[in-house]
Amino acid sequence: MDIKSLIRDVPDFPIKGIIFKDITTLLKSARGLKTASEELLEFAKGKHINKVVGIESRGFIFGCLLAEKLDAGFVPIRKPGKLPAETLSETYTLEYGEDKIEIHKDAIEPGDKVLLHDDLLATGGTMEAAAKLIERMGGEIIQISFLIELNFLKGREKLKKYDVHSLIQYDSE
Amino acid sequence: MDIKSLIRDVPDFPIKGIIFKDITTLLKSARGLKTASEELLEFAKGKHINKVVGIESRGFIFGCLLAEKLDAGFVPIRKPGKLPAETLSETYTLEYGEDKIEIHKDAIEPGDKVLLHDDLLATGGTMEAAAKLIERMGGEIIQISFLIELNFLKGREKLKKYDVHSLIQYDSE
Repeated sequence: MDIKSLIRDVPDFPIKGIIFKDITTLLKSARGLKTASEELLEFAKGKHINKVVGIESRGFIFGCLLAEKLDAGFVPIRKPGKLPAETLSETYTLEYGEDKIEIHKDAIEPGDKVLLHDDLLATGGTMEAAAKLIERMGGEIIQISFLIELNFLKGREKLKKYDVHSLIQYDSE
Repeated sequence: MDIKSLIRDVPDFPIKGIIFKDITTLLKSARGLKTASEELLEFAKGKHINKVVGIESRGFIFGCLLAEKLDAGFVPIRKPGKLPAETLSETYTLEYGEDKIEIHKDAIEPGDKVLLHDDLLATGGTMEAAAKLIERMGGEIIQISFLIELNFLKGREKLKKYDVHSLIQYDSE
């Protein structure tokens, strides 16, 4: 099944000049959802992963599916103010300004074997910050996976020391 | 397995006086995640559901797990401005002010058999608005499910005409 054909290009979202890769057309296909999650599982299985960490909010989707398939727990990383208990946070730089993500302090235990997941690898800033959070808590990052990778933004360079996988790649906009 | 014991009470979140039911302590348990999703599946299986609709963002978690288990597609309902393509929206009333949710116009087809899912049933306003969106598109709401129901807020009264299920109930704060 050609997963990539189920991704929709939406021009000028969220701002003029950007072509947004819309995954909702993949998700609403029962076969698309199952095939994509099974293919992401292929990267991760047999590696004794016990926690899958997904980044808000599209990273929750395949993050949860992977967690359950791997018999692992699921941990959300969220925007500031969304997690109710004590958190750790990391700030990262955007093209204009900066942003912040948070994780619960008790979400990862030292020695946890972690799969980090998000839907899209663009410049890699969010995932780099997420990886720092996991390592500050003593977690071991076994793998980082994405549904989509925008090769031309070279986000992979920020994640060089990790085992990085993506299911769908785009070489240009 | 006692799922309810894995839910954590966080006092004074998001505002003073509220006791927040934190599901992250359930999600990070591999057994908790699997048991809760299997129990939610029991309510829904055998009903020929072909779309599961989850409400941003905690509703995505078990929404996706249910979609895949039911061989259905997954559809997100989101806060305004998050979905990239053409949307329908519904406004609903909160204690102070109002809020709005959106769904992609092409997400539901007439005759789709829909399971609507969210993590928490409180006053029921969000879910009532979500149900309206599905029905405006011609979808048939087969079931509405929640991980947690706060009985004392009587949200179920707003959803009387539907088949409503919840896994964990609280009779008082």
